[in-house]
Formats: sequence, structure tokens, C-alpha cells
Amino acid sequence: MADLMEAVTSLAKRRGIAFQSSEIYGGLRSSWDYGPLGTEIKRNVREQWWRSTVQLRDDVVGLDASVIMSPKVWEASGHLEVFTDPLVECLNCHQRSRADELPVPAACPNCGQTAFTQPRNFHLMFKTNMGPIEDAENTVYLRPETAQGMFVDFATIQQVSRKKVPFGIAQIGRSFRNEITPGNFIFRQREFEQMELEFFVEPGTDEGWHDFWIDERMRWWTDLGLSEEHVRIREHDADELSHYSKRTVDIEYRFPFTDWGELEGIANRTDFDLKAHQTASGEDLTYFDQEKNERYHPYVIEPAAGVDRAVLAFLLDAYREEEAPTAKGGTEKRTYLALDRRLAPTKVAVLPLSRNERLAPEVRRVFDLVKSEWMCDFDDAGSIGRRYRRQDEVGTPFCVTVDFDSLDDAQVTVRERDSMGQDRLPIDGLVDYLTERL
Amino acid sequence: MADLMEAVTSLAKRRGIAFQSSEIYGGLRSSWDYGPLGTEIKRNVREQWWRSTVQLRDDVVGLDASVIMSPKVWEASGHLEVFTDPLVECLNCHQRSRADELPVPAACPNCGQTAFTQPRNFHLMFKTNMGPIEDAENTVYLRPETAQGMFVDFATIQQVSRKKVPFGIAQIGRSFRNEITPGNFIFRQREFEQMELEFFVEPGTDEGWHDFWIDERMRWWTDLGLSEEHVRIREHDADELSHYSKRTVDIEYRFPFTDWGELEGIANRTDFDLKAHQTASGEDLTYFDQEKNERYHPYVIEPAAGVDRAVLAFLLDAYREEEAPTAKGGTEKRTYLALDRRLAPTKVAVLPLSRNERLAPEVRRVFDLVKSEWMCDFDDAGSIGRRYRRQDEVGTPFCVTVDFDSLDDAQVTVRERDSMGQDRLPIDGLVDYLTERL
Repeated sequence: MADLMEAVTSLAKRRGIAFQSSEIYGGLRSSWDYGPLGTEIKRNVREQWWRSTVQLRDDVVGLDASVIMSPKVWEASGHLEVFTDPLVECLNCHQRSRADELPVPAACPNCGQTAFTQPRNFHLMFKTNMGPIEDAENTVYLRPETAQGMFVDFATIQQVSRKKVPFGIAQIGRSFRNEITPGNFIFRQREFEQMELEFFVEPGTDEGWHDFWIDERMRWWTDLGLSEEHVRIREHDADELSHYSKRTVDIEYRFPFTDWGELEGIANRTDFDLKAHQTASGEDLTYFDQEKNERYHPYVIEPAAGVDRAVLAFLLDAYREEEAPTAKGGTEKRTYLALDRRLAPTKVAVLPLSRNERLAPEVRRVFDLVKSEWMCDFDDAGSIGRRYRRQDEVGTPFCVTVDFDSLDDAQVTVRERDSMGQDRLPIDGLVDYLTERL
Repeated sequence: MADLMEAVTSLAKRRGIAFQSSEIYGGLRSSWDYGPLGTEIKRNVREQWWRSTVQLRDDVVGLDASVIMSPKVWEASGHLEVFTDPLVECLNCHQRSRADELPVPAACPNCGQTAFTQPRNFHLMFKTNMGPIEDAENTVYLRPETAQGMFVDFATIQQVSRKKVPFGIAQIGRSFRNEITPGNFIFRQREFEQMELEFFVEPGTDEGWHDFWIDERMRWWTDLGLSEEHVRIREHDADELSHYSKRTVDIEYRFPFTDWGELEGIANRTDFDLKAHQTASGEDLTYFDQEKNERYHPYVIEPAAGVDRAVLAFLLDAYREEEAPTAKGGTEKRTYLALDRRLAPTKVAVLPLSRNERLAPEVRRVFDLVKSEWMCDFDDAGSIGRRYRRQDEVGTPFCVTVDFDSLDDAQVTVRERDSMGQDRLPIDGLVDYLTERL
């Protein structure tokens, strides 16, 4: 497609899937709000991740930790020291830029001049003050990753959940990074949502578990609809590894604007974090293996995915344009989202053939029936063809049409999104029919 | 019960429902992390709110907005000016206290001295800087309420959702308030989660809709298990109304530490916010009523509940201690949470009668069967009676016991939490049996 990114962002804005935060005030450019449909897609992405990572496994439990943690956490984790980007300032216009992102030869992206200050390290954590006094002593940070919650709560959670290593702690939540160059729609925001799993294993078994989780996570993405040609595994080079990592693999997606871009990072964080927090806090963060009568700091495998990037990748991969036949025998352009049914924001749309008082009670009955089961939409505006297109465009898997025959035969027509095939079936069997397919 | 709050917080800590954030570093005292069971209870509370507020209604849509909004939002909304508490400083020890919470006669809660500075207004919004330069121009705030997202996005959402007034926008998300005196476990935290609905109505119909939502919300709380004697409606006095409110009603719960405390506020915010944002942004935030051919700023009814307070109230209300018969004919103290089944963190526990290799495959089969449907637990540690107690204590509605007879008759025993009644039934019928009851 000529410009897939353009097509998807334009659809997302037109249908209110996501739009700039505080748009009436000119927007923040660095963060996005999700409208009704985007909110449901996010909810579905979270739900699928939680289901596969927590519910269906008996070796993973959940956590819901605070965004603002003790500042000592970031001292011990190393973030306070190394979580920075090198920044230069243009001597002419004073615009600041990332030293490692300047064009070659270096020229200010704002004014074109070529003289800069020396690079200085700019901190990516948002800083604020907690409590009634504003001074250095009560400086706190918004978490740049949810992971540290799992590390500082490791011993408590292991104890209360009575899990034995290997086991994992999973969390979904917002993180905040004061990125110098946010951009590409919802791809890089200063405020974003993570789905992170810290999986604790016996040292020596870490490499095997790392491979296990790379496979599991790849399967998750493709099972939910990403085409296999659009995802790949990329090993981090030694010089791009984070300070805590022994080996990191990215699951990359073929984002149109960057060719390949990170969708999820899967790191072997070793015992770096648990040991660092034990040293800093003085609390024992070892695990006692009763069977082996051994005490050790578990190694940690971390699959860390972004909800926002997931939404973007699923939208891009699902976007379709095709020539579809019209009722009059011609063809017209049809745009639809071939979203996996589990991710579709609206599962079923109920469409009365026309706005007619005779139809209304039956339409209501059908709508009440389906909406107690799924997120549903009701639409009676415009021609039926136009309403089908409107639902196609946002990936609604099924449209249920109530017509005048329905009043006699108590049947409705169900149209499927991708095939545009239609089934006529009794209203009594509608919920079963849809349950089987959703 | 002698000290219900003590019993519930102790249970919550012992079972890891919630514990202090960054506890290994001495805790933050102002915020709490939710462990595996607490995380599931929160998920269930959110899910029930979303289901009743968004899914089951055709006049409410969702939003998922940023925590950090344009600072102009807080200027226009009035928060920058009035969202403060009066603070005094002790002249002796320099401890700061809320002027309106000092004991009478006023004496410093820290050192007992009685000389203070004049009260000054202390701002409750957390302040940080966004972007690569740290100065007043890029000061931003963490949202102290999710509501403003619905107001600044009102026109966009109305347009993309094609909803007609009356309709609502719902959001669940974290808010942040730099409270001077957080406390009472998860009741008042500096970081908390809100479930807010902004329901837009035609001026003149606002009082009727206000009453409608007060009833709806009361029903939600009691339907999910809060005893009617423990909740009440309280009208705000004129002098405690927020700057935007025409009338506010609190749904209060009989928290043991404060007698009656706010669970949810339901405010008539009038057209204050939409008008304020229109004035400040220059964007048109009116609604055009096609049928009446009229343009107006809708009034807003806002039911705003807290997820954390909901968790606390549901736990308090569900806590039971009773004398229960033992297998040996005596009695013993039984503690259980009579949580509504929709809120219970674990729906089903699968318990093999003993740790025996012959039982293992059948137990696994039963466990796999139920856990693809619900959040389930597996427990084979200790006597069966002890395991029942462990599940009772965290409100698991059903325990499924697999014993040696199960290998012959393909049946299991299902025990219900509240009645402790047991049913023997075929494994094939287990999912249906539980589906009916969950």
C-alpha cells in the first residue's frame, strides 16, 4: 500500500481510535488519548496478554504496583545513573537535540547551524516532589518501567503466593519516559503502557527459559493476527545491551515508518536487580530451594511489551483496502480492519433495516440480547451498505440486520466482516451462533 | 467485631492482597502495591464497573486519556488556583500540618508546641517538567482527577461516536494528589485509581439525571455485596461544594476508622468545565441538538468512584468470622470472605486429596478444564481442611476436590464457600455446574 501509516493514522483519527492528548489546547505531541474504539482495543490487548500470561499458566501471578516508588529503587537499579540520553544545544537557536540522532554532517534540525555545546547527559525519568515540602530530600520519580515493582516485591509475593522457582510476576501499567524525540503516532510516547513479565528461574536454566519465552511471545503475536512476514527476532549487539542484561532479543514489527521497530524486548536480566536491591535495602532477596537445599538469587527472564505499540501493529497488520461488489452490480472501494475477533473493539453491530416504529421493539430485543454478552454497537443512520462499511472500517466481526421479515419469522441476517457472507438464522439461536465464532 | 479494620488489614497483608509500596526500602506510606489476589480483585471491580457503565448501556462510551495533560487544562478547570489545602508550619520543629486538621487547641502533632506560621495554601497537584528543558514554561501536572480528559475530549468523542445528548464518557485510570495526610491503609493514597463517568445532559434535565445516577450507583454497590445498612447518601453542605458544583451527593460507607467515609461522589458539575475550556481554548464545546435546532453547553452529572476504596469496602463488608464444625465433631474459628462471586479473586481452587502420583494426571485434567474459563488456584499443601480454610480466607467461591474415587467414577466433590455444602458430580458436568453459579 502506498502509505499504510498515513492510511491507518488517518482512520484512527477519523474514527477516534486515538488522537492527541489535550488537542483543544494544541496537543502535547508526546502523548495520545484513546477514544471509545481505541479504549476497547487496548482493553482487549491487555485482556489477551493477561489471559495467556497469568490466567492460563499456573506459574505466573499478577501485581499492580505504584507508579511512584521510593527513589532508592532507582538508585539501586542503576536508572538514576545511566538512564540518560546525550543532548547537545545549538549555539545559535538553543534548540536541544539528541547527539546520537543529529544528521551527518551535524546541523541543527531547527536552524541549520552547525555549532553545538558538548553533549551532556539528559535524564529520562520524570522528577517530582512528594509530601508537603519541596526539596531534594523528597524528590521522587515516575517509573520508567514497571519491572522494578516485581523486583522490590519479589520476596513478599513469593511468600504469599507460595510459588516455587521457576515462576513469574506479571504487571500491566503505565510508565513514563521524558523522551527527547517522541513521535510516529502512538509508537513513541512520553507516557505509555507496558505489559511486563519477570520470570524468575534457577541460574544455569536461564538460557533455556529465555528461548522458551521468545517462542511463547512470538506465538502470542502471530496467534493474535500479526502476519509472520511482518515480525522477526533481532539479537541485541553487545554494545546496545542494557546495563543489567546478559542477552536481549527484540521482537520487531515491520512498522512502515522505520522498516523494523521494537514491539517487545525479551531480556535476560540475570540476578542483577535482585542483588542490587538486596545490597541497597539490606533485605534478603534470595530464594530457598527446599528440594535442593540451596539458596540463590534467581535469574530473571523479562518479556516486556508495549500496549500502545501492540495496538499500532495490530491496526497496521489488519488494514485492508479492496474492491468490493455493490448491490447495483458495480464495485467500490471497501476499507476494513481484519482484526482478530478477540481484539475487535465492537463484536456485534445491530442494524435495523430502517428507522421504523414497527421494527423498533424487535431491534431493541435483539440488541439487549447481544449486548449483555459483548461490546456491541447500534446503528440506524444511513443506508445499510453505508453502515456495513462503517462497521468494516473498525473491524466489527458481525453485523446483525433486523428487517420486516424478522417480525414474521423471528429470524435475522448475520453478515461476517471478512467474507461478507450472510447467514439467516433464528433470533433464539443468535447468541449461540455468535458465541461459537467470537 | 472488635476491630474489623485491624482484622482486614492484617488479612490483606498476610495474604498479600495489598502491602506498602517499596516496602523493602521502608515503604512510601502514601501508596500501596496490590499482590496477586489484590490485583485480581481490582481487575474484577474495574470489569464490573465497565460492564454496568459502558457495556450494558448504549448511551455511554469509553475513554483512555493521558495522566499528563496540557497545563492549560488545569488553569481553565480552576485546579491550578483552588486545588489546595491550608498548611501551617510549627515554629519549633518545622513539621507541616493541615491547618484544618490540627487538634483543638492547636498543638503540633510532632512536638506538642503551639506556635505556627500563618496558613499558606499548599498545592495538591504533583508538578514535573516535560521535554528537554527544565523551566517554568514546560511545567506539567499529574492529573488529580480523570474527569478533565472527558471535558477536553468532549467534542471529538461526541463527533466520532455520533452519540446524542444525553450520553456519557467513562474512564478508569490513575490520579495523583499530593495529600498531606494519606492514611488508613488503601483509603487515602497519593496515587489512586478512579472510575469516573461524565454524563452530558440537556440543561434543565440535570436534576432528574442526578437523581437517576445516585440511584444507579447505589444499586451497583449493594448489588455487588455491600450491606444496605453500611451505605448511605449524604448531601454536601453548601460550604463544602467544589467550585464547579451545583449539588454533590456522596455515597458513604461505614468505614470502621471514620464511621462514615466517602466511597463515591456524585456531582452536578453544571456546564462549568465545558464553558471554562471553551473560553480558554477558543474551541467550540457546545452541542447542537438537531431535533430542537438548539445549541447549548450540556450540563454534566459525574459519578466518581475510587477503585481502591471499593476494594477496601468490599473486603470489610465480606469479612466473616464464625465457629465452624470440624471433621472430629468439635468446632473451630473459620474466617472467610463472603465476596460476591464476580469479585472473588480466585473463582475455583482445585485440590487433590493428597500428593499422589496416581491422582496427578486426573487433577491436572480437572485444573486445565477450569482454568481456561476462570482465574483458578491449585493447592496440594497440607490437610484438606487447612486448604479449605486458606481458600475461605480469600473468598474462593468453589473448591473442587479430586480423590481416589474420582479415578473410578470420574466424579469430583465441589464445596461451596459460604454454606460449606458439598456436591458430588461428574467431571464432564463440572464446567456447566460452575458456569451456572459464577
